[in-house]
Amino acid sequence: MAEKSECLARTVVQQCVRARLQVKPPDEECEAQWVEIERGMVIHVCFFKGAQPDVVPKLVNSLLNVKLCEADSGKRVSVLELPGSILIVPQATLGGKLKGRSMQYHSNIGKEDGLQLYSNFVSQCEKELTASSKCSEAGVVVKCGTYGNRQVLSLDTNGPYTHIIEF
Amino acid sequence: MAEKSECLARTVVQQCVRARLQVKPPDEECEAQWVEIERGMVIHVCFFKGAQPDVVPKLVNSLLNVKLCEADSGKRVSVLELPGSILIVPQATLGGKLKGRSMQYHSNIGKEDGLQLYSNFVSQCEKELTASSKCSEAGVVVKCGTYGNRQVLSLDTNGPYTHIIEF
Repeated sequence: MAEKSECLARTVVQQCVRARLQVKPPDEECEAQWVEIERGMVIHVCFFKGAQPDVVPKLVNSLLNVKLCEADSGKRVSVLELPGSILIVPQATLGGKLKGRSMQYHSNIGKEDGLQLYSNFVSQCEKELTASSKCSEAGVVVKCGTYGNRQVLSLDTNGPYTHIIEF
Repeated sequence: MAEKSECLARTVVQQCVRARLQVKPPDEECEAQWVEIERGMVIHVCFFKGAQPDVVPKLVNSLLNVKLCEADSGKRVSVLELPGSILIVPQATLGGKLKGRSMQYHSNIGKEDGLQLYSNFVSQCEKELTASSKCSEAGVVVKCGTYGNRQVLSLDTNGPYTHIIEF
């Protein structure tokens, strides 16, 4: 098993034409609640022990500007350039390391700090989209999952073009 | 950016209740062809320079026996124990490293060697499922994408429970 160097955050980025995520499970009184995006990018994110708030702008800057989205021309552009929507999925399982037949998550950040970083990440992504006139005009959005919940996800792609980006 | 140590193969494993993958794009004569699985596991796989055939049994043994699948009891079991189906997606983009605003794929294995390892991986997974009487009785299957094609994928999950496992 190859050992990873220390990292503070890990993301798995997948392109979508549509993605739908449960943000509140059903209960006795209410049906489940969902958020949905159309064309854009799904970002699965996990923070590790030692991650501080200063890592968040690095994630935002890299992920919103890396050329992973396919424009109508076939050229790869950033999600801001496309412009596309963003679905952020908290995914603590990305911190797993294989140990025998099970996964261990000893490097994952604690829940409270993780929630704080996650919330910062979401709000900074929203801020960037709002600041882009191209994004505002196109009506693209940032949607996100509820930290700590089960992330019931449906993903439709024209090729997920899956990338792992670490920070 | 955290640097990764050398690895020979990288997988992203996601749980699904249903997954559908295009294996032949549409052309003038035919509609697109698809494969589909129900409950089970989607394995996105990428091989790196230096990978030899002996890495394949390690992937097969780890991935088919690691306890990532949710049994009806809520307990995590392996895909062989569930038993569940497997959809294998060749995903060369997993070899990408961020360089400025673009991804580079200098560590990826060459196409011919990659296809050979990929084909071995698929056939060894099939062999393991066939050898399991539990899997045979349940009628679970291995399906796979066409190496080198665009992987048009749709994924329905009850939580993708995304893991990265490297070899």
